[in-house]
Amino acid sequence: MKKIIKNGIIVTAADTYTGDVLIEEGVITGIGLNLESPGAEIVDASGCYVFPGGIDPHTHLDMPFGGTVTADDFETGTIAAAYGGTTTVIDFCLTTKGQPLQQAVDTWHNKSQDKAVIDYSFHLMVSELNDKVLGELPQIIEREGITSLKVFMAYKNTFQADDGVLYKTLQAAKREGALVMVHAENGDVIEYLVDQALAAGNTDPIYHALTRPPELEGEATGRAAYLTELTDSQLYVVHVTCAEAAWKIAEARKKGLRVYGETCPQYLVLDQSALEKPDFEGAKYVWSPPLREQWNQDVLWDALWSGTLQTIGSDQCSFNFKGQKDLGLGDFSKIPNGGPTIEDRFSVLYSEGVQKGRISLNKFVDIISTSSAKLFGLFPQKGTIAVGSDADIVIFDPTVERTLSAETHHMNVDYNAFEGMQVKGEPVSVLSRGEFVIRDKAFVGTAGAGQYLHRKRFEAEAPRPAKAEISGGVI
Amino acid sequence: MKKIIKNGIIVTAADTYTGDVLIEEGVITGIGLNLESPGAEIVDASGCYVFPGGIDPHTHLDMPFGGTVTADDFETGTIAAAYGGTTTVIDFCLTTKGQPLQQAVDTWHNKSQDKAVIDYSFHLMVSELNDKVLGELPQIIEREGITSLKVFMAYKNTFQADDGVLYKTLQAAKREGALVMVHAENGDVIEYLVDQALAAGNTDPIYHALTRPPELEGEATGRAAYLTELTDSQLYVVHVTCAEAAWKIAEARKKGLRVYGETCPQYLVLDQSALEKPDFEGAKYVWSPPLREQWNQDVLWDALWSGTLQTIGSDQCSFNFKGQKDLGLGDFSKIPNGGPTIEDRFSVLYSEGVQKGRISLNKFVDIISTSSAKLFGLFPQKGTIAVGSDADIVIFDPTVERTLSAETHHMNVDYNAFEGMQVKGEPVSVLSRGEFVIRDKAFVGTAGAGQYLHRKRFEAEAPRPAKAEISGGVI
Amino acid sequence: MKKIIKNGIIVTAADTYTGDVLIEEGVITGIGLNLESPGAEIVDASGCYVFPGGIDPHTHLDMPFGGTVTADDFETGTIAAAYGGTTTVIDFCLTTKGQPLQQAVDTWHNKSQDKAVIDYSFHLMVSELNDKVLGELPQIIEREGITSLKVFMAYKNTFQADDGVLYKTLQAAKREGALVMVHAENGDVIEYLVDQALAAGNTDPIYHALTRPPELEGEATGRAAYLTELTDSQLYVVHVTCAEAAWKIAEARKKGLRVYGETCPQYLVLDQSALEKPDFEGAKYVWSPPLREQWNQDVLWDALWSGTLQTIGSDQCSFNFKGQKDLGLGDFSKIPNGGPTIEDRFSVLYSEGVQKGRISLNKFVDIISTSSAKLFGLFPQKGTIAVGSDADIVIFDPTVERTLSAETHHMNVDYNAFEGMQVKGEPVSVLSRGEFVIRDKAFVGTAGAGQYLHRKRFEAEAPRPAKAEISGGVI
Amino acid sequence: MKKIIKNGIIVTAADTYTGDVLIEEGVITGIGLNLESPGAEIVDASGCYVFPGGIDPHTHLDMPFGGTVTADDFETGTIAAAYGGTTTVIDFCLTTKGQPLQQAVDTWHNKSQDKAVIDYSFHLMVSELNDKVLGELPQIIEREGITSLKVFMAYKNTFQADDGVLYKTLQAAKREGALVMVHAENGDVIEYLVDQALAAGNTDPIYHALTRPPELEGEATGRAAYLTELTDSQLYVVHVTCAEAAWKIAEARKKGLRVYGETCPQYLVLDQSALEKPDFEGAKYVWSPPLREQWNQDVLWDALWSGTLQTIGSDQCSFNFKGQKDLGLGDFSKIPNGGPTIEDRFSVLYSEGVQKGRISLNKFVDIISTSSAKLFGLFPQKGTIAVGSDADIVIFDPTVERTLSAETHHMNVDYNAFEGMQVKGEPVSVLSRGEFVIRDKAFVGTAGAGQYLHRKRFEAEAPRPAKAEISGGVI
Repeated sequence: MKKIIKNGIIVTAADTYTGDVLIEEGVITGIGLNLESPGAEIVDASGCYVFPGGIDPHTHLDMPFGGTVTADDFETGTIAAAYGGTTTVIDFCLTTKGQPLQQAVDTWHNKSQDKAVIDYSFHLMVSELNDKVLGELPQIIEREGITSLKVFMAYKNTFQADDGVLYKTLQAAKREGALVMVHAENGDVIEYLVDQALAAGNTDPIYHALTRPPELEGEATGRAAYLTELTDSQLYVVHVTCAEAAWKIAEARKKGLRVYGETCPQYLVLDQSALEKPDFEGAKYVWSPPLREQWNQDVLWDALWSGTLQTIGSDQCSFNFKGQKDLGLGDFSKIPNGGPTIEDRFSVLYSEGVQKGRISLNKFVDIISTSSAKLFGLFPQKGTIAVGSDADIVIFDPTVERTLSAETHHMNVDYNAFEGMQVKGEPVSVLSRGEFVIRDKAFVGTAGAGQYLHRKRFEAEAPRPAKAEISGGVI
Repeated sequence: MKKIIKNGIIVTAADTYTGDVLIEEGVITGIGLNLESPGAEIVDASGCYVFPGGIDPHTHLDMPFGGTVTADDFETGTIAAAYGGTTTVIDFCLTTKGQPLQQAVDTWHNKSQDKAVIDYSFHLMVSELNDKVLGELPQIIEREGITSLKVFMAYKNTFQADDGVLYKTLQAAKREGALVMVHAENGDVIEYLVDQALAAGNTDPIYHALTRPPELEGEATGRAAYLTELTDSQLYVVHVTCAEAAWKIAEARKKGLRVYGETCPQYLVLDQSALEKPDFEGAKYVWSPPLREQWNQDVLWDALWSGTLQTIGSDQCSFNFKGQKDLGLGDFSKIPNGGPTIEDRFSVLYSEGVQKGRISLNKFVDIISTSSAKLFGLFPQKGTIAVGSDADIVIFDPTVERTLSAETHHMNVDYNAFEGMQVKGEPVSVLSRGEFVIRDKAFVGTAGAGQYLHRKRFEAEAPRPAKAEISGGVI
Repeated sequence: MKKIIKNGIIVTAADTYTGDVLIEEGVITGIGLNLESPGAEIVDASGCYVFPGGIDPHTHLDMPFGGTVTADDFETGTIAAAYGGTTTVIDFCLTTKGQPLQQAVDTWHNKSQDKAVIDYSFHLMVSELNDKVLGELPQIIEREGITSLKVFMAYKNTFQADDGVLYKTLQAAKREGALVMVHAENGDVIEYLVDQALAAGNTDPIYHALTRPPELEGEATGRAAYLTELTDSQLYVVHVTCAEAAWKIAEARKKGLRVYGETCPQYLVLDQSALEKPDFEGAKYVWSPPLREQWNQDVLWDALWSGTLQTIGSDQCSFNFKGQKDLGLGDFSKIPNGGPTIEDRFSVLYSEGVQKGRISLNKFVDIISTSSAKLFGLFPQKGTIAVGSDADIVIFDPTVERTLSAETHHMNVDYNAFEGMQVKGEPVSVLSRGEFVIRDKAFVGTAGAGQYLHRKRFEAEAPRPAKAEISGGVI
Repeated sequence: MKKIIKNGIIVTAADTYTGDVLIEEGVITGIGLNLESPGAEIVDASGCYVFPGGIDPHTHLDMPFGGTVTADDFETGTIAAAYGGTTTVIDFCLTTKGQPLQQAVDTWHNKSQDKAVIDYSFHLMVSELNDKVLGELPQIIEREGITSLKVFMAYKNTFQADDGVLYKTLQAAKREGALVMVHAENGDVIEYLVDQALAAGNTDPIYHALTRPPELEGEATGRAAYLTELTDSQLYVVHVTCAEAAWKIAEARKKGLRVYGETCPQYLVLDQSALEKPDFEGAKYVWSPPLREQWNQDVLWDALWSGTLQTIGSDQCSFNFKGQKDLGLGDFSKIPNGGPTIEDRFSVLYSEGVQKGRISLNKFVDIISTSSAKLFGLFPQKGTIAVGSDADIVIFDPTVERTLSAETHHMNVDYNAFEGMQVKGEPVSVLSRGEFVIRDKAFVGTAGAGQYLHRKRFEAEAPRPAKAEISGGVI
């Protein structure tokens, strides 16, 4: 059904203006002043921002991990996402060594297709990269539109790939037009530090952070950048948490390397001290990489502002405190890694970013939506409010003041990572391809209405890195 | 008169899509598919890009310099600009010590108001900053909307301000919401090097470059960034030419400093060897800072791509080869500095940038137009194609192949800086506030039709720079 | 008279061993085990270190400053130096614009020749560098052996030279074989900050530090390094106080530039909070550059350890608290800059450096003596314990524990900068050219016994800086 | 028998002076002018330098590698070393997984004890670091005086240790007072690149260099420095070849980390083009890391000059061109790595370093001898000319001009890495503990006369690295 969203302040990654948006057959067909169209439903957005729907480039829904499964599946997870202003998620499709890639992707299709209430796509985790897998890759990219490959530099003996595999993946990605994503931490050293901590009887959640110092994230980030340089390929560093890593990306970009970075809301507003909460509550805040000392938050905001980092992902990976997180009682290394952030990603970035003057409205849209669409081959179908784009739209009331809490959130998990945090602004209504998913703060969508998104290949719009003939360093 | 630009590929700093643009009373009022409006003139843009009009943030029209006056005034200069796809220029208003600021501004109004064929505004050159001038400043900013102040770190004994004045200007700019622009070269050393070269009988144009080595630009750029940090103010470095300077800006931005940078088309495609052309032709290529060794071009492209530099200015400052440039025959220091680039800025960036895959279409629009609008307080009136914005529009045919030449250009000067260069793409029609200035490659505008633009104050949308507690350096 | 210093632990910049030192006619003629020489006086050094006499490369004795004169002249100053283990000082000879250089040097000869109890030499302050002065320079270097030239980047309107003069001095120094010394602070900005502070009624001593932030020292240091690179000359940065400056020197040296640095004992053990002492006592701690935040001390120790900084100077410039420092009551800018450190330089470095495990014994000797001898053309006559070198020797008891205090010091000034500080180790006896100046902790020297030292030209033992063909930065 | 070396120019890491050296019972007992001692043999050193004997911290003698054994054993290798001015070698003792450490050391004792003509010691290669090995380590260090442990980051599937092992080794080294040595190249990526090259039919020697790009050395060096920082331990990077690696060490030292570096003569004077020599001659120049582009040589000289690198090792690992190097005909990966440099290390550094003005005489001694003695616990027994030190002495005639060649060298190998190179200076006589090994350029020593050296533990004379509270980067 046709709709006109009237009188909102329309915001894109470039523009901010007041106007109306005409939606026909799920697509934006007109933007203007005083738009009229016979038969169109009128949606009043006066006093509200009209944002493109958020794109969450980093979720783990219905994912097995350490003998348990994430608390949110594609239904609860995408409902919560929609409540929070997100209209597209890109989830990580796990693969198993020896398993054909298509089989892995099919498994993920099965998990999602009847459940997702918003559109979605998949990244592919690279668990091995032998000739067989290399052979399957072009087909998967072509047929499934999966144009991003994740490599882990950590999680030794499970996910971790060695540098040769990372190199090979970067080569393959360049050839096939894909973007390589890395979890950048030095897994070899972490494994040793964890063993050492446990052997010394240091079993509390805080040791999760202390056995993964930021230097090991900085080191791995720089290492991945080096391999990107050697392969002349493209790299996206997921969940950047600290100065050591952010600065490595800045250095790489200064050299003209196509290196991109993502941070997560938790790293922008929480810090390492949360892991010291009593009664094992610290376990709620166990992410990998871990939360860092507070001063790193400023560095991350700087990096978002300056363009060193381009996106924010939730890294949604929810586990209940009771029954899941407590698997790690007495052994921090058994705490399932991850937390529930898919719903509040959008609001936290708006409230702490725009409201507090750290980033502009346009930069907000770029980070929350547009950059992910461009990097992951969804643009301009997703990621903007423009003629011809899908009508994935968030009507956002910036005047609301509210408190984030497990009592009010919609994720299927028994705690909220930002419990008690005051934020300004709230999504009022959310449309996916022109249909309301959230209307006046109530869910009105349908499980299975979300469509799988076949993504385009990565396009490197970048000059060749410069070869500078300088003296050895710049003063 | 109403117009509809139909079927073009509309490009903004964020978006690329096919559609129609409705223009009413000089303003964009609708964007959509198959737009209709009774009585509207239909302008076919099929196969063409529809760009926001270029904004040239750096011109010197009708400016006295070294006993002569630039060859282009506000009429010839803005006509040439319009031919080249530029619909707004921001010119530098010179001030003289002792002269009231308002008087200087009035002089510039007199030079421009009956001549400009497109809209324009002024930056204010700070020649001194005593209490009297400081007292006048708030009024000038308020009344004239001049919200950018230029300080010279070079041109000793004429324009050059000392670091105390730069510091004071940065403080005043922060207080008043203005942006400080610097010409960053170490003037003290340059003066000495020039004297030394002339004393040694080294009088050819190439010595202009050799007496202004890139280290002196890098040094001054870093120095200005330091003062910006100390004052927590904002800085825009004009005409960045080299790695030494670009990297200083990258470092500053990595720290979260609000430091911005501009380069010029000449630094992207010409190099120092041009100054060695025989028959004194090198004089045509005398800019300050000078053209650099060729490898710096890649660094500048990288810096545009990565966001280290945000804008491109022409630094239009044209002098005829015969009668003006030749004032420096036998003494390179007497060659009037500057060249004619206002017309080809847009096409050079498109052809060398977009066509050669160095920057995306959106980044092109950002650099050529949007960023300048945002930094200099003209957004969203200028700098984009959005509902409510001025209908400053370029219809650009990307398929044309042509050769830049003085024989075909429209600047009032006897040579072209890019003579013989092949470019792809050409502005077909250019509108200023909805009226054709260029139509089907012919000038149809009117001297004096351009309006003076009262600009908004600088808004710092940026986090506070982070205070990092790190070990002394990052490996 | 012949002497044998027996059984001491002889320490040089390279070696540490037990042995005897034979001295004949003021020169070391033998080193060995169980040395014997008929008629030689035996000096027992058992349990003591036998160090080469300290060289203080930075003193201001009998110097007029701001309407007063330093409290110590060449007699009291060198007696105190000798008590502290220093056997050579290099003092700064002031010059006045227009005055012939030789006249200035003669003035300094007159101040020193009948007073100094240890050997001494002069650096030459460059107040201007016109053709006349340039013409006199070679003679002064040849005749007087003054092979180091000091340029001030601060003290606007008095000592400050502009960057053109610094450049010219670097060129001249390279040509003549001299070493350029800089006081690296941005004087233009400091002048403005001081004026601004005073205008705001901020007159207490702490504002001396607050109006000279470390960024201004870092900036100037980097600027001087740039000019050194351009001139392919040699630079010595006096009194480095902070990370910003030390790291600039490290960067310069990484590039292969012949840039050297000195710090002072006060910067290693005192910090900015001292300027906040009540009852105007902060004035005692007014040096330029000022004391810094404490964490900079670690950076300076690192820099000494790693070789980024090579020497330690006292920057002795003593003024009495009563009658001199109090000229700045109510106006911090009138507090005479400087303090009394000539006597405790040696002991502070030993106690805080060697005793606390920050530097080795050999590095201590290198910093306190050998490096200065080599950089300033006194080696091997001074700066080591080796056959053929002057017998300038300190017998040092490392077991003594004592408290530094004005009550026990020998400087002619009413306070001690390190009052109350516990140190380990004390010079027991000090010989200058084989004669005791201090014997068993008592002065036994003679005013005028010190000789003027004609120094050798600077020898650049260094490779050409590398020209590296790298990508734009190293990750 | 007593000896007096007369009238030489004695040079240490600090001093240069003319004098005599008295030797009694293999030890230096006196240094002086006109020394006399009844019964002493007089050795005239007029016109010659008297240097401390060279210490080669990096040799592989009688080492099995890739199915063959190095061409030089402890007899031929140490004879050649002595001819070249080296009086101490520290060889790498290989260990095998599962083998008790003592057994490995005993094997090396057996290889050396009846053969070495000069003194020697061993480094221990760490092939694994499980609890058993960790348990043996303290005893080996105590009993054998082996206080340096080598870890390989390259040679996948043979020597390569993962980062966890490196971390653990650094921890153990700190606890036990040992120095960790690393071969810093990224072995995982190299293995892949080698496989890829061979699969593509790229089998010539030049591919050895092309599959080990300098970025992979820089990366690994930075990674090792990170782990050193985390463990607060000490690191020595062997055979640094390139800017990427040298600058990482400079950065680490700037932070105050105890990171040290060694280069080798081949990297200072040869470059990558040597691997392209026809007729498989490139195989002669196969070292790991490989020779680099020529401009890196300047960076290495800079790094030696500035103290970023402290030592020069030969990395002697000789294989005959015929019969050994040719194992790699048709497959560069089978070329035995290494070359014959033990004999010319000293002369190449002198001729290219001192003679060409890149380093001073004292720095030469420091690099060729003293620094190795200090870092590896041999000082002051070895590494200097001082009273009490072993009389390991080189009498060196700086006036000789000669050509390096396999025809004249004394290594047991059929080619010379520096064939045809003109050098200035030659060792005339060499003494080990007071006895001639080389006399008037002829070998007069005895196999087995060399003694095994029990080394002291590593002493960290360094401040704690500073924790700097700076903004995110320094401009």
